[in-house]
Amino acid sequence: MTLVLVTGGQGFIGVNLVSELQKRGYDAWSADILQSKDLRFLRCDVASYRQIQRIFEGKEFDYVYHAAAEYGRWNGEAHYENLWNTNAVGTKNILTAQKEYGFKLIFFGSAEVYGDYDGVMAEDVMERIPIKQMNDYALSKWVNELQILNSSKMDGTESVRVRLFNVYGPHEHYSPFRGVVPVFIYRALHGLPYTVHKGHKRTFEYVEDICRSLANIIDDFKPGEVYNLGSEKQYSIEELSDIVVKHTGADPSKITFKEEEPFTTRFKIADSSKAKADLGHKMTITLDEGIKRTVDWFKLAYRIGE
Amino acid sequence: MTLVLVTGGQGFIGVNLVSELQKRGYDAWSADILQSKDLRFLRCDVASYRQIQRIFEGKEFDYVYHAAAEYGRWNGEAHYENLWNTNAVGTKNILTAQKEYGFKLIFFGSAEVYGDYDGVMAEDVMERIPIKQMNDYALSKWVNELQILNSSKMDGTESVRVRLFNVYGPHEHYSPFRGVVPVFIYRALHGLPYTVHKGHKRTFEYVEDICRSLANIIDDFKPGEVYNLGSEKQYSIEELSDIVVKHTGADPSKITFKEEEPFTTRFKIADSSKAKADLGHKMTITLDEGIKRTVDWFKLAYRIGE
Repeated sequence: MTLVLVTGGQGFIGVNLVSELQKRGYDAWSADILQSKDLRFLRCDVASYRQIQRIFEGKEFDYVYHAAAEYGRWNGEAHYENLWNTNAVGTKNILTAQKEYGFKLIFFGSAEVYGDYDGVMAEDVMERIPIKQMNDYALSKWVNELQILNSSKMDGTESVRVRLFNVYGPHEHYSPFRGVVPVFIYRALHGLPYTVHKGHKRTFEYVEDICRSLANIIDDFKPGEVYNLGSEKQYSIEELSDIVVKHTGADPSKITFKEEEPFTTRFKIADSSKAKADLGHKMTITLDEGIKRTVDWFKLAYRIGE
Repeated sequence: MTLVLVTGGQGFIGVNLVSELQKRGYDAWSADILQSKDLRFLRCDVASYRQIQRIFEGKEFDYVYHAAAEYGRWNGEAHYENLWNTNAVGTKNILTAQKEYGFKLIFFGSAEVYGDYDGVMAEDVMERIPIKQMNDYALSKWVNELQILNSSKMDGTESVRVRLFNVYGPHEHYSPFRGVVPVFIYRALHGLPYTVHKGHKRTFEYVEDICRSLANIIDDFKPGEVYNLGSEKQYSIEELSDIVVKHTGADPSKITFKEEEPFTTRFKIADSSKAKADLGHKMTITLDEGIKRTVDWFKLAYRIGE
């Protein structure tokens, strides 16, 4: 039976991915820095090599999805000590373990690596255009990709990288450092005001669609490959807010509209054609349906109206 | 009186730079992670923001030379936890302090940021050519440069970056992770064997020449500027070894010659014309004279022949 580990497996995408992998019949385990009541759980701070060793001395994992990371731009600026420790040291620890234990690695990268580049984001623009990442979070994710490429070259480790865009859906809890979807939904459901910045457009990917593509990587694992897991349809933040209002029944007068946010690109256009071809990557859930499901999950998770 | 701080001021280049700054009449202090008997010394691990705060609450420094770093490629691979903590978190701490206390920053970068690029290294190749850094040390130094650029953009901090090549000279102690000059001299003076890799050529810069250019930055501080502090004359590692043999009187039969080292560029060609124009950067000490002086220092420091 194929043994699969998901680091950060108690986090938003991790929880969804472990479910998807278990549905497919894999013996899928989660590792995370937090405690958990799950049975298929191994507690581990990836910044500690000893704790990683404990895991791999115990089980021979075939695949490791490395999702454990400090996430998000402003989170990274506020908590940069944690960011560099978990993301740079943590990923280097995973690569050190990979050299030792020989598993195949799938790394969770971010579209933030495209930095100040404002054209169509295809995976190979990094080979053609010099790009500057604009914050420490983005930098740490690019560092991770190069750590992986250097490790493959030096030690022959086998890895696939993915770059995620704006994944949303059930099991993403609210924090002020999270993306617009959980922030809008949480605040709307609690009658709190929130701010919508005009002039920006983004794509949004429902987490189940992303986890299907992620799980498909095992079926056709191509070492060295990197995939954008994005989508085409662009929504303005105003449009997103309207959908949130529709499904939460929030009072629109609590929303403040502001001009463009500084230090953030206005549009992000992803080319995910490689993932479509290799991984059958596709979006099956519309933003309307996805937000509806996410609102339903928030109501349960935060006991709204009980 | 102009107050100047050199982080890593008890390290190789730091010691030399503090001397140069004091000779010029500046009130120059060193900060370092190690203890020191120096009177103008402030103990500080730059990875601790509280320790940095202690320094700047006590004195209003006008200029900070940020040299404190884990140094070297193989050191960075062996001690990557220290590398990311000191280099990425440490530099972010310095930038956080800069935003708070408003000093002008001079950052010690490395030619390693030119990574897999094998053409003439002019400062602006980073704007024209996509470059991949080939090890964690190089990555950390490039991260630092982007942290500085992002901080200038977001917070208006004022910094100058320099990129150092193969600086050598007195006060660089031996460790197996150090560059070829101290390794060859130390081993030659102790009658130990050493290995010379053929096929590589490098430039070598005597530390006093570099410190003069570094100190000149204060005279004409241009925020946002970046300078290569390299030199033109290329020496093969065999030629360097011959000069070391000449000044140490070592037994040449103890030297093993090997083929090219893998994962390392054969040549590195630096363009330092900007530093020449702005900083009066020039090499005044030949490699022969520089090695002679370095050997003399090694004999004193390691009590050879006492």
